[in-house]
Amino acid sequence: MVVVEKDLVTLNQDIAGQEIGIPVYRIFDKSIVNKTKAAGSGNKPVPKVYIQSAVHAAEMQGSAVIFRLIEQLKKLTLFAEFTLVPNCNPFGRTQRAGEYLQGRYDATTGNNWNRFYHYDETDVVSFVESLEQAEIDLIKSGSETKLVRSFKSFLKHKLGSKLDKDWGVNTAQFLNTTLQEIAVDADIVLDLHTGPSSTRHIYSPEFLAGQATAFNIENIISIPPKFAGALDEASFTPWVHLTELFADRGIELKYKVSAFTIELGSQENICLTQALSDSAGILNYLQQHHLVEGFVGVEPVDITTTLLKNYKTLFSKHAGMVEYLVKAGDKVAKGQVIARVLNSLEFDTKHAIVDVKAPDTGTVILHYPSAAVQVGTQLFKIAVHG
Amino acid sequence: MVVVEKDLVTLNQDIAGQEIGIPVYRIFDKSIVNKTKAAGSGNKPVPKVYIQSAVHAAEMQGSAVIFRLIEQLKKLTLFAEFTLVPNCNPFGRTQRAGEYLQGRYDATTGNNWNRFYHYDETDVVSFVESLEQAEIDLIKSGSETKLVRSFKSFLKHKLGSKLDKDWGVNTAQFLNTTLQEIAVDADIVLDLHTGPSSTRHIYSPEFLAGQATAFNIENIISIPPKFAGALDEASFTPWVHLTELFADRGIELKYKVSAFTIELGSQENICLTQALSDSAGILNYLQQHHLVEGFVGVEPVDITTTLLKNYKTLFSKHAGMVEYLVKAGDKVAKGQVIARVLNSLEFDTKHAIVDVKAPDTGTVILHYPSAAVQVGTQLFKIAVHG
Amino acid sequence: MVVVEKDLVTLNQDIAGQEIGIPVYRIFDKSIVNKTKAAGSGNKPVPKVYIQSAVHAAEMQGSAVIFRLIEQLKKLTLFAEFTLVPNCNPFGRTQRAGEYLQGRYDATTGNNWNRFYHYDETDVVSFVESLEQAEIDLIKSGSETKLVRSFKSFLKHKLGSKLDKDWGVNTAQFLNTTLQEIAVDADIVLDLHTGPSSTRHIYSPEFLAGQATAFNIENIISIPPKFAGALDEASFTPWVHLTELFADRGIELKYKVSAFTIELGSQENICLTQALSDSAGILNYLQQHHLVEGFVGVEPVDITTTLLKNYKTLFSKHAGMVEYLVKAGDKVAKGQVIARVLNSLEFDTKHAIVDVKAPDTGTVILHYPSAAVQVGTQLFKIAVHG
Amino acid sequence: MVVVEKDLVTLNQDIAGQEIGIPVYRIFDKSIVNKTKAAGSGNKPVPKVYIQSAVHAAEMQGSAVIFRLIEQLKKLTLFAEFTLVPNCNPFGRTQRAGEYLQGRYDATTGNNWNRFYHYDETDVVSFVESLEQAEIDLIKSGSETKLVRSFKSFLKHKLGSKLDKDWGVNTAQFLNTTLQEIAVDADIVLDLHTGPSSTRHIYSPEFLAGQATAFNIENIISIPPKFAGALDEASFTPWVHLTELFADRGIELKYKVSAFTIELGSQENICLTQALSDSAGILNYLQQHHLVEGFVGVEPVDITTTLLKNYKTLFSKHAGMVEYLVKAGDKVAKGQVIARVLNSLEFDTKHAIVDVKAPDTGTVILHYPSAAVQVGTQLFKIAVHG
Repeated sequence: MVVVEKDLVTLNQDIAGQEIGIPVYRIFDKSIVNKTKAAGSGNKPVPKVYIQSAVHAAEMQGSAVIFRLIEQLKKLTLFAEFTLVPNCNPFGRTQRAGEYLQGRYDATTGNNWNRFYHYDETDVVSFVESLEQAEIDLIKSGSETKLVRSFKSFLKHKLGSKLDKDWGVNTAQFLNTTLQEIAVDADIVLDLHTGPSSTRHIYSPEFLAGQATAFNIENIISIPPKFAGALDEASFTPWVHLTELFADRGIELKYKVSAFTIELGSQENICLTQALSDSAGILNYLQQHHLVEGFVGVEPVDITTTLLKNYKTLFSKHAGMVEYLVKAGDKVAKGQVIARVLNSLEFDTKHAIVDVKAPDTGTVILHYPSAAVQVGTQLFKIAVHG
Repeated sequence: MVVVEKDLVTLNQDIAGQEIGIPVYRIFDKSIVNKTKAAGSGNKPVPKVYIQSAVHAAEMQGSAVIFRLIEQLKKLTLFAEFTLVPNCNPFGRTQRAGEYLQGRYDATTGNNWNRFYHYDETDVVSFVESLEQAEIDLIKSGSETKLVRSFKSFLKHKLGSKLDKDWGVNTAQFLNTTLQEIAVDADIVLDLHTGPSSTRHIYSPEFLAGQATAFNIENIISIPPKFAGALDEASFTPWVHLTELFADRGIELKYKVSAFTIELGSQENICLTQALSDSAGILNYLQQHHLVEGFVGVEPVDITTTLLKNYKTLFSKHAGMVEYLVKAGDKVAKGQVIARVLNSLEFDTKHAIVDVKAPDTGTVILHYPSAAVQVGTQLFKIAVHG
Repeated sequence: MVVVEKDLVTLNQDIAGQEIGIPVYRIFDKSIVNKTKAAGSGNKPVPKVYIQSAVHAAEMQGSAVIFRLIEQLKKLTLFAEFTLVPNCNPFGRTQRAGEYLQGRYDATTGNNWNRFYHYDETDVVSFVESLEQAEIDLIKSGSETKLVRSFKSFLKHKLGSKLDKDWGVNTAQFLNTTLQEIAVDADIVLDLHTGPSSTRHIYSPEFLAGQATAFNIENIISIPPKFAGALDEASFTPWVHLTELFADRGIELKYKVSAFTIELGSQENICLTQALSDSAGILNYLQQHHLVEGFVGVEPVDITTTLLKNYKTLFSKHAGMVEYLVKAGDKVAKGQVIARVLNSLEFDTKHAIVDVKAPDTGTVILHYPSAAVQVGTQLFKIAVHG
Repeated sequence: MVVVEKDLVTLNQDIAGQEIGIPVYRIFDKSIVNKTKAAGSGNKPVPKVYIQSAVHAAEMQGSAVIFRLIEQLKKLTLFAEFTLVPNCNPFGRTQRAGEYLQGRYDATTGNNWNRFYHYDETDVVSFVESLEQAEIDLIKSGSETKLVRSFKSFLKHKLGSKLDKDWGVNTAQFLNTTLQEIAVDADIVLDLHTGPSSTRHIYSPEFLAGQATAFNIENIISIPPKFAGALDEASFTPWVHLTELFADRGIELKYKVSAFTIELGSQENICLTQALSDSAGILNYLQQHHLVEGFVGVEPVDITTTLLKNYKTLFSKHAGMVEYLVKAGDKVAKGQVIARVLNSLEFDTKHAIVDVKAPDTGTVILHYPSAAVQVGTQLFKIAVHG
């Protein structure tokens, strides 16, 4: 029997003192969870999947996708416990800037809400050093269940300690660390975002780029397994490092947390019809990993994988009003005029229009959402296949 | 010989003291202007056309249209002097809000940049009272040229006095009054705007609604000739009032300034191809009034005129994430579901989605540009034909 | 027995759907309220006092004052029911702009949160026209109790209808009208604000300027009893108009709602010590009107009353960095240098510093809170006694 | 003969295309510069001092200080060339946020304007590797003049290459790199900032903490010579690294660029009187280094130096309205109540006020400039002397 539970986790207060929290949905099949519990702590636990959306508050499509996932998970056979957190940023989602939502960074500090998750390399080292020989022997013998459980518990404890510090943490750290405390138990972590004016794409760590195709999204950006502050990185990096430390001791670990950042089109927008097809990709991935059963599957699309180093940003060299001549998803050739900048001080000269050319051949993944640009504005991001 | 002159009018300084101004283009046929001047001051002067854009700085399409107008006016026969002011708001156009431009109001005060033009009813009264009998007799005899010239000069003087006040004026008044000083000479005034996510439409005073069809824009909003702060109103209202005061004395004036606010689609966007077709409507209007010659004309569209009292705003009664189910330009029927609001705290109940229904039958002129709304957000503006 | 009741009135939701409301405190003496109720509906009801703060969210000192009032009212004898609403603007109080709070206007529309209260002159006319002769005779005989009750009930009904409109109302109207529904029952309405960098002052309608001295605030701005959108005006204007309509019929009404806007120093700041002295002025006023008993009173200050037409704003004629040479509360003489503007493009010339002189003699009530100004920035507000 | 030259360096355009630049002042004694030039390129060049202010645009006091420095340098004997850049951020200084200036970060991206200066460790390595033996022998012999000149030229070239990249750089990189191109020639670099509500303090690299006392500022924060994105670090770090690489080869370099970030009180404020005393500290430093002569000197203050690791931020654990009970510059004891947070939902309970205690003994260097805080707001920065 599939159960949907809802919790409101307080995360913020406004200056009047009123609490503003996040809804956290948990979906699972009671009978399967009970059976696993009955089997005892030595057994492989029920897998856990964590999905959040809108940590950048204007990137709302992921919340529509979570709505669709809840609808559908109720009808499938579930072999995992799901934790779903739509609109996970109660700070950003009240922050208006004109007619839009400024939810990308803390309006006080400029801190990007997706760059303050926690990872400390030295923690992993100290964890490994604290392991007793018996535990290491168990792992050597091929049994990782206990290791996984105790490392997760260790990481969770570290996150709690961070939040408890006398001097406190900044707002972005507070938000990110609190979310991470919920996510740290999960075996699969999906962070749902959007771009500005963007086609769908997915960030996958290199070691999962093969599996990432199951999401059925046309563009995969393959990133090295390093930490740069985001949730996907914060989720898999400790396990990558743990694996390396064991490899140094000649032990090959099989378990790793899988984590992806999925970019579901453009910000400031939701579409429930499109959300159904977005959720299909996620369910397809889950079914391939035997976490759900009964999903009808997807019509596969052609997928291109681009290394992060070839995923390039074209910054504007001119201020002015820009007309974008290509749209997200379009292929462009090196030298092709992809935008033109209008300069109203030169309407009577031949300098009125400046052409912007693609510096290389590739696929336009996203462009800036406004015609008004300054020098250094991120005009385009292009997956280069030059 | 058509001449294009360019001037940079200083309007603003930043806090370092650097001047930030507006480019003002003047286009005219030298031979015609000279001929008229030679004819002496009693003669009908060369008509003047004033066109500005982007007083709401993010409403940029009008600047692209002015670029197209300059291109084309150079090739036509001109019977008028044109003053063209793209990007006329140097305060708004530097004001960023996240990835968009906050150019609708003064970020310090909330003052709408299009609500502080000058009009003082008592000025008109005192002007009429100051007229000598000889002047009135001249008007009675059908000759308005001198009256028009002296009233324009009177209005210009009032604007100058306002800017010179000891105690000063606020920033929006400063911007608006300075622009109005340039526009006050003109016989035709066009203020180019856009809506948020919007179809093209035009605000015309009732007494010009017939002529407004020449712009070839599908939707006309016909407004009463009252002053509510905008440039079009500030341009025609003094003349409407002057006409009324003369009518009270049994004299019928023929001259009035014609002024329109033209809404050229959606904000944060320019398209030079569309700008060509937008400029065609304006040239068509100008040609019908014998101000240009040689323009090939337009393919007429079906035009609907709606009284301002039937141009209604639907404000949201719910906060949440909105999917717009109709787009600008669509016809809707009373009771039709035109949007739905997603509430992420109710994803597990039947209250997850709230339908928004059209309160009446009509044409959607514009909708809000973001999915993120609060109670009272302007969701739609609808021209009601119920 | 003095009772403090607390209610959370929902006013806003964020885009996730979470409700954000306002705490409403009610303080009264149960025995007095009961006694009055027992006396029946013909009797004079217990007077009602409504006090709100921080409708401009960054103007927080009033909330500290309400905290102090609750502390003290509990210890006094109360002859009135008090409704106290600190932080009454749940929209503004989450809206950050850098390190400050942008709570003066709706960040989407620029609508000032204190300009959308409801008043419709025609309502008052239709109310008077609907009165039956028997009611009018009762009033003529000197008994206004029933009239007051029915007019309040009429006004409340109008506010409710406004909120119920099919097409809805904008966010500021929604906030203001909802607050007004709570305030409309009150006989005394106090709206607690602050200025930018400001000395304490109070806006009083002319007909109450004598009574306003009881608040013991050094500067009174005496305003004509007209409606310009604020709560104080929305509270007393209907009663002023009602009185006028009765006067036209030869009947003199005695009852009017008393309403004031009190400016408690500077924004972005609270001080609980100062709040104690601020609350003393309010309690002094209440005690003079026999609404509380047992308050020890205040040490009277010298008070200057200035007509609104003499309360003038000095707008900057220069952009640059400003040093304010006088502070709020200072007296200035006509021609005195009260600020100087530094222009960094002229550091090598004698134009580096521009002096700003007082255009008239008076008291500086407030100045702009930042050194960074543009043309038209409101530099000073001065109560002119020239 | 002291000469003041002024240049306007274009850095930005607004969307109309208008250029917005920075005034750059150069002050030097012509006779000394000429004499040095005459002596030939082998000779020690005239030292160069670079001073900029307001890269965080609301931190304006430094611009007033530069005004005062220009006044005074003209009267002194100069043994150095001075480059002075007030209001060096044309992007930030037009960016308003309510009544304040949002000049700390790029409003589009959240990028801090003081974190994108350039430093690439591998550049230094490649420079050293490119040196020929003859050059190294020259350095060994004690002559560093040529090395200094060629390393500066190398660094300048790298900055130019960065700005020339096909794909461009972001706006903060563009601003910072362009400023750094001007500063890279200097031997002494001063970056003038302010805090929020702050006492004067100075960031000095550890190796200069002794010299930093000459600025006569009460609090010195001594930082390790590492690069974290700011101008002071970008200025001295390459030289620190160069010294280390030479030390590895057994050669001791004597020359290093000296660079400091000076925090001149509070933002949103200028005071020309205080600017005179601020400039005195800088002139005192310059005179101690024989770069000026004729300055009368300062009255020394007591100076405390704190290591960066003991300079701690206290983040708020509560949202609400805060009263700061200590001010910048105050000493506080561990456990002392230094602020209290008012919660308007608890005005009727004992939780209305939450005390904030100092976690350690020290000096309050700054506090947040507003009473309105959220969880994670930077309440205080304290130099801990516990």
